[in-house]
Amino acid sequence: MTQSIDRVDHVIPKEEAVFSFGPEMKPVLEVDPGAVVTFETHDCFSGQIQTEHDLVTDIDFSKVNPATGPVAVRGAEPGDSLIVEILDIRPGPQGVATIIPGYGQLIDIVESPVTKVLPVRDGIVHFNDEIRFPMRPMVGVVGVATGGEEITNAMPGQHGGNLDDHLHGIGTKIYFPVRQRGAMFGVGDMHASMGDGEICGTGIEIAGEVTVRFDLLKGKQGAWPVSETAEAWIAHGTATEFPDAMREAFREAAYLLAGEWGLDLEDAFILLSIRADVGVAQACKPSPFATIARVVMPKLDAIPGPFRI
Amino acid sequence: MTQSIDRVDHVIPKEEAVFSFGPEMKPVLEVDPGAVVTFETHDCFSGQIQTEHDLVTDIDFSKVNPATGPVAVRGAEPGDSLIVEILDIRPGPQGVATIIPGYGQLIDIVESPVTKVLPVRDGIVHFNDEIRFPMRPMVGVVGVATGGEEITNAMPGQHGGNLDDHLHGIGTKIYFPVRQRGAMFGVGDMHASMGDGEICGTGIEIAGEVTVRFDLLKGKQGAWPVSETAEAWIAHGTATEFPDAMREAFREAAYLLAGEWGLDLEDAFILLSIRADVGVAQACKPSPFATIARVVMPKLDAIPGPFRI
Repeated sequence: MTQSIDRVDHVIPKEEAVFSFGPEMKPVLEVDPGAVVTFETHDCFSGQIQTEHDLVTDIDFSKVNPATGPVAVRGAEPGDSLIVEILDIRPGPQGVATIIPGYGQLIDIVESPVTKVLPVRDGIVHFNDEIRFPMRPMVGVVGVATGGEEITNAMPGQHGGNLDDHLHGIGTKIYFPVRQRGAMFGVGDMHASMGDGEICGTGIEIAGEVTVRFDLLKGKQGAWPVSETAEAWIAHGTATEFPDAMREAFREAAYLLAGEWGLDLEDAFILLSIRADVGVAQACKPSPFATIARVVMPKLDAIPGPFRI
Repeated sequence: MTQSIDRVDHVIPKEEAVFSFGPEMKPVLEVDPGAVVTFETHDCFSGQIQTEHDLVTDIDFSKVNPATGPVAVRGAEPGDSLIVEILDIRPGPQGVATIIPGYGQLIDIVESPVTKVLPVRDGIVHFNDEIRFPMRPMVGVVGVATGGEEITNAMPGQHGGNLDDHLHGIGTKIYFPVRQRGAMFGVGDMHASMGDGEICGTGIEIAGEVTVRFDLLKGKQGAWPVSETAEAWIAHGTATEFPDAMREAFREAAYLLAGEWGLDLEDAFILLSIRADVGVAQACKPSPFATIARVVMPKLDAIPGPFRI
């Protein structure tokens, strides 16, 4: 799955991390568009959980969800989109998943807390002696500076943050709405695998390395991060409850179809109903977390991406 | 996409239709397990909408969502699963999609009502002169007799009914919980394409033909219809609001992992969180319709299907 990367211009150590995105962020590095940067990333617990005896109830929550960075991209101005192409994601050899008291879709039918250690060898996750499956690496926290609020990395928002979309894997491009000069990109919360919904609140939380290439789209942006894979483009929406997140994501998709591709809103509504697939990026409830919806619109000859470029 | 079908044992005309599933259904045909049956199906409007001048506000709603059948399968007893393998779905040459006043995720930003006529030629949907895409045929209403209630085909339930899962396409097997002798299967509400969520309340509503093969799994069943594709198995849940449907579907998936495959519930909870993808089959809101969630669990070497067979 690794894409060919002919050069890496910079490597940022995982110690250079932030725990929130806000309007005033100081870059650890400034690069030009086109730069390729590798981010070393902690796992979401900053390495506090290493064995099945380390329980999530015992850790320091102020160290949860670090994002390595931020990196400023020269020329990024409010109104632009920062394009982040994920060239590679390399998880380390061991991840963990946890059951957290009070959290998650099935918490009423299980005992808790539980920590499960999950080795990853040669791209295969070893759940136990019998159950194994290929990893599906992705990054949960991906974001840029906000327009005004300070938003903890536990939460998603229009700046990105904890978007937890499993489609944010190798090969995906994310278009972030730039709200501050330089954009200020950070990334963390890698998962060797995370299911849509992430119903116990964790995927396979794992440290590793992420390599991205930066680019700019001048003068265009979505209200939320918009993503693009080889086959589709993806609108996002987030809200406390999933039905509201879903409506936000559809509204974003409809405005892209109308604003960029000239559809009237009736046609956008019908086209989304008959051909776009809404998905559940994140819906761990009960929990204090937000829910995240994505709308996946396949690329068509007439509508090859989210933006007319 | 059409599978090779070496014989069709019976053809049921679309005039043999029911508008609800209940506990006492009179079969139009009785077959043995292994039988291959073609169902001719009306579109969901029973053909009342043919042009863009036919508006959904003017039709007779008592004729909406016919299901051709029911067919009784010999040997199907309460406690078994009726296996329905979808061998082929052949939409007709023209479908329609509609915007219904008061219905759907984006209804507050569009004018309505609207009828859009959508030609389907050689497997390609013609949205307009520029926008075209391959059809993705599926059946919305698939069900069997209920344990007691009479449930209109507008609604889904543990018997199936209006499940509206786009994964119910060619090649999928559906395991229905048999509640009455003979099971009593019916099918309708074909879509040439329907997006997950079906956010305006319609996909491409179209008449056509569906060919299925019946089989039985004796002495095992889920609480809801469980489906199987080449790559994955799928648990379902339905409820008025989507978060409740999602919890039902995850509960079903966890009980299948525990009951059939011996996982403890903690491991089932974690495995679903890190590897299963919850999806939105149907979530047209606002509307009187129910929402439908599916949990897609990829087949693993150790867990190759929903049931240990």
